[in-house]
Amino acid sequence: MANSSSGESVAERIVRVLRTFDADRTAQTPSQIARRANLPSSTAHRLVGELVATGLLDRDEGGRVQLGMHLWELAQRGSRALRLRQAAMPFMERVQARLREHTQLAVLERGETLFLERLSHPHAVSNITRIAGRLPLHASSSGLVLLAFGDPDLRRRVLAAPLAAVTPDTPTDPAELTALLERVRAEEVVVARGFVEAVSTGIAVPVRENRRVIAALSVVLPREAPTAGAIDELRRAAAGISRALERAP
Amino acid sequence: MANSSSGESVAERIVRVLRTFDADRTAQTPSQIARRANLPSSTAHRLVGELVATGLLDRDEGGRVQLGMHLWELAQRGSRALRLRQAAMPFMERVQARLREHTQLAVLERGETLFLERLSHPHAVSNITRIAGRLPLHASSSGLVLLAFGDPDLRRRVLAAPLAAVTPDTPTDPAELTALLERVRAEEVVVARGFVEAVSTGIAVPVRENRRVIAALSVVLPREAPTAGAIDELRRAAAGISRALERAP
Repeated sequence: MANSSSGESVAERIVRVLRTFDADRTAQTPSQIARRANLPSSTAHRLVGELVATGLLDRDEGGRVQLGMHLWELAQRGSRALRLRQAAMPFMERVQARLREHTQLAVLERGETLFLERLSHPHAVSNITRIAGRLPLHASSSGLVLLAFGDPDLRRRVLAAPLAAVTPDTPTDPAELTALLERVRAEEVVVARGFVEAVSTGIAVPVRENRRVIAALSVVLPREAPTAGAIDELRRAAAGISRALERAP
Repeated sequence: MANSSSGESVAERIVRVLRTFDADRTAQTPSQIARRANLPSSTAHRLVGELVATGLLDRDEGGRVQLGMHLWELAQRGSRALRLRQAAMPFMERVQARLREHTQLAVLERGETLFLERLSHPHAVSNITRIAGRLPLHASSSGLVLLAFGDPDLRRRVLAAPLAAVTPDTPTDPAELTALLERVRAEEVVVARGFVEAVSTGIAVPVRENRRVIAALSVVLPREAPTAGAIDELRRAAAGISRALERAP
């Protein structure tokens, strides 16, 4: 029912439309959407009209469209992201109150690190992560934890592909990365000094639910900050999140 | 292109599928979805397959499906909800640190109060609001602010419809509600004692962006708690959120 002549489903086209929005592009005309989604103009206009009618997009006074509040609501309401974030928030706030830099929660999403939450102090060190933003698995401390404890097939795929250097310190040698991931599995923590930005160090630990690693909890600190206290805070918080998740199924 | 024989667009059917998920129902089989979305089984199975292929739904090991992390990401990334929430969080955290009950941020969405954020102390008073949850405009303190400063047409519609009593104290008389809304506009605050739950009082103030009221900031306190300090905190925080929004367009 839902296939166009190109063989693409309407669901795929809707995703193409939604993908044209991001933090720097929150309101667009249907024509801009057509161009950015690479859809014929008439198709894009019709699809935008349908999405506005259902509340997945909202039209503003100027005739531009934005992501719908109803889309936000539907995507949140029954989501694992919300459940995980709710369980994690009290513990993240405690870490944040002590360290006063950045405290983050991330999950694995289709081969990348997806950040679900970030708390930041106004005077904290530079940090490029955004809520609902992504980073490569091999570069971010969260990603290294998710990769270390993730599916071996994914690890093989990541190690076989070219490893981009985000900074000169990002691990890009497969043998070096393999050894690093073994250390992460043994020590249950990674200290990523300058892997994403030269000025900062990411520290991440695994968050488990019924023994399975489902997320990474991390802090971003100035590069030369001491790490021992932060590691203790993260481990305590990760254990608290696991308990909260297991109490609230 | 996207219309079924029933005249319903695929976007509408997708929304019907997404609506079957909520906080108490995060994983479902395609058959359960078909039943709850009132779709023919073959249609639901096909649509679920397409949604899984695009990442709007994820399939778990047991063959059940959940809301996709990619859906969460797309709905957040360029959304006004995220922008507003990011601007509000530092100020909400300050209110929450002082009052240690519940601090909430809500917007108007299709004639109801939609909650974007809620911070809660573990020992706070009972509170039925949920993130991504809704309440009627005339019952919740946030809703009364959104209604008082909202479109006059909406106000007329709400006042003309039956006003449900959530508790014996919910305002259900149109004349009484009209007078209350006038007071809210004059005083820029509402104190809703027992309107949603008998044990608690909601207090809400408007949050403006370029003079227009775009959200309500509220706290939920024990019913007989003093209100003056909370009102001051809320007003200070709302002003801070407005400044933050106007700095970050």
